[in-house]
Order: sequence, then structure tokens, then C-alpha cells
Amino acid sequence: MPTSNSTTPPSFETILSPALLPLYNLQGKTVVIIDILRATSSICVGFHSGVTLFHPVAHPEQATALENEGFIGAAERNGQKLNGFMLGNSPFDYLSNNLQDKKVAITTTNGTRCLHLSYEADEIIIGSFLNLNAVVNHCKNTKRDVIAFCAGWKDKFNLEDTLFAGALAKRLSSDFVIECDSTLAAIDLYNTAKDDLAGYIKKASHAQRFERLGLEHDIDFCMQNSIYDFVPKMVGDNLVLS
Amino acid sequence: MPTSNSTTPPSFETILSPALLPLYNLQGKTVVIIDILRATSSICVGFHSGVTLFHPVAHPEQATALENEGFIGAAERNGQKLNGFMLGNSPFDYLSNNLQDKKVAITTTNGTRCLHLSYEADEIIIGSFLNLNAVVNHCKNTKRDVIAFCAGWKDKFNLEDTLFAGALAKRLSSDFVIECDSTLAAIDLYNTAKDDLAGYIKKASHAQRFERLGLEHDIDFCMQNSIYDFVPKMVGDNLVLS
Repeated sequence: MPTSNSTTPPSFETILSPALLPLYNLQGKTVVIIDILRATSSICVGFHSGVTLFHPVAHPEQATALENEGFIGAAERNGQKLNGFMLGNSPFDYLSNNLQDKKVAITTTNGTRCLHLSYEADEIIIGSFLNLNAVVNHCKNTKRDVIAFCAGWKDKFNLEDTLFAGALAKRLSSDFVIECDSTLAAIDLYNTAKDDLAGYIKKASHAQRFERLGLEHDIDFCMQNSIYDFVPKMVGDNLVLS
Repeated sequence: MPTSNSTTPPSFETILSPALLPLYNLQGKTVVIIDILRATSSICVGFHSGVTLFHPVAHPEQATALENEGFIGAAERNGQKLNGFMLGNSPFDYLSNNLQDKKVAITTTNGTRCLHLSYEADEIIIGSFLNLNAVVNHCKNTKRDVIAFCAGWKDKFNLEDTLFAGALAKRLSSDFVIECDSTLAAIDLYNTAKDDLAGYIKKASHAQRFERLGLEHDIDFCMQNSIYDFVPKMVGDNLVLS
């Protein structure tokens, strides 16, 4: 249920890293999980390709076990697909005709962990530049307090997740109360970067690592704005389309 | 001793909140403690007014006990001076003729805690806009790896400390390797704000609270650039002038 009424607009806050999560109260709120490079982007691509649900798991062994129950396994650590899995964490892995009506058991370095950490929230949804418009409209319609939860990189702040938090906050700024410094910073960083998001991200350390891995085309793909019009959402233990 | 050599420039990293400290290795590094509103600014003012040393303590009771040993007690919590203490955390408290040759035992909500948390560093110094030039020159001369440690507000990110980290990083960018996303973000935020730092800070939540407490003139004071040419430094358990 929405927690706000007509006299009190809902609030918008940003968690810049999972290490800061204990400072925030998620109860009654919509948490937008953000792992732009690349879990939340790739999950959106997967739904576009016909995946019916993603089941996030903590360990690769759990993904392997679920392969025996009809799931496709997806596992990434430190930016690379783990051996033995059909899917990793690149959006191009998920642009496949073979994913129609499939269930995917997924584990990634940062993103899937945030899904588990957010269990106290009223609602957990998936945000990426690829479905930005849909997330904006969802938040405006539900009118709950929103927390943008940046997955970061191994608990450190990262630029690309913060930029998405800023893009989302900017689009919601007329309808939400924004008082937290993290969100104000995110909006200003987004304004600095918005004319060339991919170029800006490529200066980030995370992206520098990506370049070394030859994955810079993933960045260009993940910076596309609103090419999908849906919002993946946790229902029980699974991500499905809302 | 400097940890770098002529072929490897020293690195510059930024810790955006004390909650992120466990992710960083302080050994062999210079840590710049940053609590712009207001501990590190006020400490600089105190040295300018003739204080010979600051002894940071965790609890107000410790400051009271040291008053019996010739110290002046300084204690702030939640932005306000605690009853019974001569000094709080406002820079104007420290613009006093009565501080010549005095020792001050100080405890504040955020800043003094960071001094204690940084004990593993090779060197701990105090940074504020009031002594920015001196800190820049100190870091260039010592050539150690630098960590800008933002005190934040009760473990949350804040804008004013991040802006100072950005100002410092920008000034050191020719001589230091900057790869961490936190520092890249801090530099861009500083570039956004630099033409009107005080105006920018007043939009921050922390500053909004300050305005409610009628302390907005503290912000204007603390945003002055390089009016003091010294670097307070931890030596043993005390801050002194280096």
C-alpha cells in the first residue's frame, strides 16, 4: 500500500553502496535495485528475450543445482562468466532466441546480493537505463517512498549506478521530496554526464577494468535509454514482470 | 617515509563515509580528515587563535575530566554545543583571544571519531577549505599515497566533505594517480559547485538543518579558501601544527 497521502509527497533517497544499507529503513518503501554494469541491465534484456522469471541465488553451486530442475544457470564473478554456465552477466548473453519461456537462476558479484539484502522493503524492482521510463512511471503511480539502491562494486561507490539514481531522481523530482545529499549529488553527476553517458562511464575505474576485458560494447548497450517498457519485480523469491 | 618512487606516482583515493572505511587500507598513507561543517574547519581556526594542541576524545565526560588538567573542553553533538562547555563546534567559538597557548580537549559528532578510526595510517592531517593550499602543498611534498576521508553525517554521505575531497583531488591530479570512482565523482561535484560553494552547500540537507539552527554564517565562514597556511597533524594522541 502507498505510505503517503495527498499532503505529504513521498520521499526519494539514494543508497550509494550496500555498506551503507544499515543506515536506511526500507520498510514500507519501493527499493530500486541498480547494477548498471551489468546485472540489472542484463535482467531487463533477459525478460525482453522471453525469460519468464529470474531466481537470484547467492552461490554458483545453487545455480548449478537448479539447472537440474529446468533452470538455465547464469553466473558471474569479477566481471567474467564462470565456466560451465550458459549465461554470464553481459547483456549480449541475454539477446538470444533460446531464452523464450525459460527460467534463469542467476548469481552475480554485486547485483543479486542487493536483491537479498532488500528483503525488508515493501517492493523490490529492477532499474536500468534500458527501462528508465517504465521505472519512472511505476514510481509515480505507486506513490510509495523510493530508495534507489546502488549495487556498487564490492561495496565501493561506483559512478554508473549513481548516474542512474540521479537520472531517476531528476525525473521524479516534481513528485517526490528529495532531501538526502546522496541524491542531490547523484542528480548533479547525472547532469554533468547526461550528454555522453557512455563516454563518462568509460572514465570510471569499473569501466577501465571493462575495457581491459574487451567488454566496452556492453557499456554502450547498457546506456541506451528506455528501450524496454516493463519493470521486473520481486514476487516471492523470483523476479517477474509486474 | 614516502611509499612511492619516481616511476610510480602516489595514488589518491576518497572514502565517502566512515562506514566505507573497512574497504580501504590506510597503511603507509596520509589520511586527510575532512569534516567541513564544522570540526576540521574549527580546529584550523583554533590553531590560528593560538591553541597549541587539540586532544580528540570520544566522549564529553573525557573532555570534562581533562578540564581539571588545564584543558579547555569542547563538545558538540547533533550540531549544538553541549551545556557546560566553553567551546562547541562553531568556527566563531574559536575566534577568541582567550585561546592563546591553550590546550583543547574536543569531541564532536563525526569529525573526532574519524581521527581515532584512522590510527593505522602513516600520517593523519586535518583538511578544510580554510587551509586547502597548505594541504595541497603538504601532499605534493610528502609524495605519500593520500586518502581523503570524509566524516559525513552519522555515517551518511554528505556534500560539503565530498566537495573538499574534490577540490583537493583536482589540485593534486597532475601529481597523483586517480582511479577511484569516489574521487572522480568528487572532482565533478566540485567543478559543479566551485563558483558558489556556500550557495551549493546550503542546498544540502546538513546545511538545511544548519539554517534551522540559525548557523548559516558558519557555512560562509567555512567556505573561505586558504586563509590559513598550516596543516594540523596527529602526533601521538594530539593534533599539533606540523
